[in-house]
Amino acid sequence: MQFHLNGFQVGDPERHPAQLPASGWPDSVDVLIVGSGPAGLVLASQLTRFPNIVTRVVERRSGRLQLGQADGIACRTVEMFNAFGLADQLLREAYWVNETAFWRPQADDRQRIERTGRVQDTEDGLSEFPHVIVNQARIQDYLLDSMLKSPQRLEPDYNLEWVGVTRDDHATHPVLATLKTTDTDQMVQVRARYLVGCDGARSKVRAAIGQQLRGDAANHAWGVMDVLPVTDFPDIRLKVAVQSSVSGNMLMIPREGGHLVRLYVDLGEVTEENRTAIRATSVEQLIATAQRILHPYELDVKSVAWFSVYEVGQRLTDRFDDAVDATGEFREPRIFIAGDACHTHSAKAGQGMNVSMQDAFNLGWKLAAVLEGRSPERLLASYSQERQPVARELISFDKEWSAMIGARPKDPSNPAAGGVDPTQLQAYFVKAGRYTAGVATHYRPGPLTGPDTWQGLARGLVVGTRFHSAPVIRLADARPVHLGHAATADGRWRLYAFADASGLGLVNLCEYLLDDPASPVRQFTPAGADLDSVLDVRAVFQQPHREMKVEQLPSILLPRKGRFGLIDYEKAFTIDPTSNIFAMRGIDAQQGAMVLVRPDQYIAHVLPLDGYRELEAFLRPVFIPQ
Amino acid sequence: MQFHLNGFQVGDPERHPAQLPASGWPDSVDVLIVGSGPAGLVLASQLTRFPNIVTRVVERRSGRLQLGQADGIACRTVEMFNAFGLADQLLREAYWVNETAFWRPQADDRQRIERTGRVQDTEDGLSEFPHVIVNQARIQDYLLDSMLKSPQRLEPDYNLEWVGVTRDDHATHPVLATLKTTDTDQMVQVRARYLVGCDGARSKVRAAIGQQLRGDAANHAWGVMDVLPVTDFPDIRLKVAVQSSVSGNMLMIPREGGHLVRLYVDLGEVTEENRTAIRATSVEQLIATAQRILHPYELDVKSVAWFSVYEVGQRLTDRFDDAVDATGEFREPRIFIAGDACHTHSAKAGQGMNVSMQDAFNLGWKLAAVLEGRSPERLLASYSQERQPVARELISFDKEWSAMIGARPKDPSNPAAGGVDPTQLQAYFVKAGRYTAGVATHYRPGPLTGPDTWQGLARGLVVGTRFHSAPVIRLADARPVHLGHAATADGRWRLYAFADASGLGLVNLCEYLLDDPASPVRQFTPAGADLDSVLDVRAVFQQPHREMKVEQLPSILLPRKGRFGLIDYEKAFTIDPTSNIFAMRGIDAQQGAMVLVRPDQYIAHVLPLDGYRELEAFLRPVFIPQ
Repeated sequence: MQFHLNGFQVGDPERHPAQLPASGWPDSVDVLIVGSGPAGLVLASQLTRFPNIVTRVVERRSGRLQLGQADGIACRTVEMFNAFGLADQLLREAYWVNETAFWRPQADDRQRIERTGRVQDTEDGLSEFPHVIVNQARIQDYLLDSMLKSPQRLEPDYNLEWVGVTRDDHATHPVLATLKTTDTDQMVQVRARYLVGCDGARSKVRAAIGQQLRGDAANHAWGVMDVLPVTDFPDIRLKVAVQSSVSGNMLMIPREGGHLVRLYVDLGEVTEENRTAIRATSVEQLIATAQRILHPYELDVKSVAWFSVYEVGQRLTDRFDDAVDATGEFREPRIFIAGDACHTHSAKAGQGMNVSMQDAFNLGWKLAAVLEGRSPERLLASYSQERQPVARELISFDKEWSAMIGARPKDPSNPAAGGVDPTQLQAYFVKAGRYTAGVATHYRPGPLTGPDTWQGLARGLVVGTRFHSAPVIRLADARPVHLGHAATADGRWRLYAFADASGLGLVNLCEYLLDDPASPVRQFTPAGADLDSVLDVRAVFQQPHREMKVEQLPSILLPRKGRFGLIDYEKAFTIDPTSNIFAMRGIDAQQGAMVLVRPDQYIAHVLPLDGYRELEAFLRPVFIPQ
Repeated sequence: MQFHLNGFQVGDPERHPAQLPASGWPDSVDVLIVGSGPAGLVLASQLTRFPNIVTRVVERRSGRLQLGQADGIACRTVEMFNAFGLADQLLREAYWVNETAFWRPQADDRQRIERTGRVQDTEDGLSEFPHVIVNQARIQDYLLDSMLKSPQRLEPDYNLEWVGVTRDDHATHPVLATLKTTDTDQMVQVRARYLVGCDGARSKVRAAIGQQLRGDAANHAWGVMDVLPVTDFPDIRLKVAVQSSVSGNMLMIPREGGHLVRLYVDLGEVTEENRTAIRATSVEQLIATAQRILHPYELDVKSVAWFSVYEVGQRLTDRFDDAVDATGEFREPRIFIAGDACHTHSAKAGQGMNVSMQDAFNLGWKLAAVLEGRSPERLLASYSQERQPVARELISFDKEWSAMIGARPKDPSNPAAGGVDPTQLQAYFVKAGRYTAGVATHYRPGPLTGPDTWQGLARGLVVGTRFHSAPVIRLADARPVHLGHAATADGRWRLYAFADASGLGLVNLCEYLLDDPASPVRQFTPAGADLDSVLDVRAVFQQPHREMKVEQLPSILLPRKGRFGLIDYEKAFTIDPTSNIFAMRGIDAQQGAMVLVRPDQYIAHVLPLDGYRELEAFLRPVFIPQ
């Protein structure tokens, strides 16, 4: 964490000095966010990191969420939270999913369940962070608290409901949204440059831009409850998938605090015939079902914190924006949708909240880059282009996984009856680990994702996937750090230069970046801004840190910043001899490599150290020359 | 972190529901703390963890400290902060001291300095936490924020100055303190059961109990400044000890945020002759001296956040309490002093703030145990008995270290002139690592520290030293954790039972603890309280965790707690195969061992698993049978 750059500031360094906007409702804002769920709040938290961008969040509920809803936080989401400075609190408070256990009917007495296996939840080395579980309300609290520490001290405006929107491309603020107070029915109109609907599966913004969720004909229902149990079931503090022979299947997810457990009881497909009955399922019925499923173990539910009958189909919209108008013509998008507004998942793979937050992370930096004049408007079309296929792929995965986990257990005495054996389920679970960890997202070549021409120079840092961090030593203070944690959610691109064997290629690159008029740093950094404010160059050397000299670093790795021109000493790293990043990530130790990383931590390009022209050509359409 | 035991609570689990006392000044309190520095706030934060204890902190300053003063946080202090739930934020924000560099005059040109060596700051494995540096103001903020999350929402009462105290042993609240508002000179009287003076080196509480600081005849002076520099000195982000031939010595301590640096410029011994001149040292003079010391490197100070001329002698009081009255008779202590009020150190070894906070940690649990009726009053005499010798030892160390670091550098061309060679300094620094890390404290055998009769059963867990944590796997949720982190600052004693090879000794111990009327758990746990509320029993098994069955654990390792009788699943651990705690801490894998740990994390006793009688005999004087 870097601070005090422009002089010592007393108090919490993460609470920025206030730059409060005028109170009351502004006539116009840069970004209007509808909905304060995980997608809306990730987007808002991201945008509050840019003090000049005026953002407002409207929410029809009357205040913060207090309990219930989602709870699974994939490794990839923890990585993102780390970029937001919020991982420590999350990791402290959350349940860590270390292992998952599988239970099925006993062969000799199919009324009773037995454990068939236990697997490590997340493959070793998949992420430096674990898979964790915490109440969605707390996830939202972390984001809301981060917004309150921003210069704008942004809080959602509660009790404000969406009414409608018009778009006028001739206006400086082309979006005119109409809202209504839920209590007094008073109408409010707001002009915005951009509007983002994060208003959930029943999104009205989605309807307003003519999109609809397509997919499953029917919904699947789950009874979900957060309970404080007393039980002799031995795996109550592990994540558990139970297949029972008589009462269906159940997922058990231990929760934060050491006592709470979430149970997902499968209530099957919702049909015309059973809809009323399913919706009327009481918590007592859910508990009774859970008790039957766990037989011969006892489950005594002492307290129910929350319960819900949750109905969902796996569905998706065609686009996540309004870039195609009513006549089918392309235009620059102004209105976006994110999260459940554009894709809905089953509860089982833990995708919904995670994918929604990644949508917002993808969109947030793009909006900021355009609003701050660093990037052209056309950047925004890439949001839907990138995220819609990701959602489609995840829904396919989710369907397979749901089918597996929702299936009847195979009866060994009657294999012809079909069903899924827990060993199959367990094998699929392991195979699917990259999806559930959230690290399977792979953007295809496009304006923000280069070709894989030079992928061989850094085989473990795959273009289009998230930058997979590894340990290094920070040169100037000899501190072991994670290289990927240099990437905070500040809207900057990062260029990681991995040194070649001679070191010459790296030195030449640094000189090019600093001095050549064609260099992206020279072209795209605004006058007066810090040298690293658009493209943050970091270097990783192959020598142990005591063999490197700080005083011999190329100038761009010791940039002078801020009002005093202080030196930033956090640009140069060396290998950590106990875990050599070159070996861990398959980086060519002879030739080195440039790895270009987007503000959302996805790898945009891998290039040779002398790939100056390719770098500049790739970035030219992304940035506006300053 | 465990929570939701008595039902789901919305919001931040570390912010407890308020149980606010009546507003305004109470007529009487349990503990009155004078001074809100590190010692006073550690004590206050500790006491607020006991909702029934009424504590007040008075402070003559007008509000929170904002900058300056101490900044070094030893590993041991981070361990303590972890017990308070405050380590994550500290580690996030602080500078980590990874290496220390040593510089001296060049042999061929003694006006110029050169680096003579770099050493790892903290020996590998000394603690699971690093040595870090952060502004004392932030340390106090963390503690103050923790107090604000307590049921009492305790805040110091500012602008209240100490006037005097009387003691009347016949009253229920024997201490009558008189205070005065600093602004209006209004007198306030408060009755307290106990009073603790944490009012610094010029303590008035110390004077009131007839104690005085003894030691150095003269003070040593340091010019201290927190600066934002631009420099070509390559080690500016390392901790550095510089010996110069012409302008004295300097310590350089990088600070939080990546830019700030603290410089300690040695101004020498304060004498009658130089006192006025030293005290008048300006920041410009300090900067000029620092510049000369760093020659040939440039030091351009862009901003000074804080500076002070700091004078200190190494001094100590005979007692830290009022247990000896004016006639020399012993009585139960009612008034205590802690921190700088009883011992002052040089700035160089980074001891002052750290030792002060450990004083308060030692005293806090004892006050709570007595006030809550768990322990007899005589426990309190152990505070001075234990801490005074520790302070004495640290002052001896500090004198040696100060002499080394304050000495002239040896001139190779004139060795007869004396002085210290940087290689000697470096060697001493490494040797002294355990002192500076704060882990050298070793309480001698006494009422709270058993004999070392059975030390051979756990050679690396030395009776009288702090429990040195090591990694284990928590059985029920398969989570890798640090065993020592089970010890939170909640006033409970811990009994770590390390299993014997057969496991039988452990099972027998668990049965004894639960069922035998003589067991300390049976004798000392109040009726209606949770089974682990006085003595928290934890077990470590030798098998890998998947070979252990939760359902076969002895009952005391699955205690039923709280209003619902929920099971606590965090009592049983197994070895982490990647770092076997039995091997790391020299625990006898054949016989196992019991390791009894005090609420301040110090090891009270090591016993064989069947040392029931010894355990009970040791604890009998410590607790009151319930």
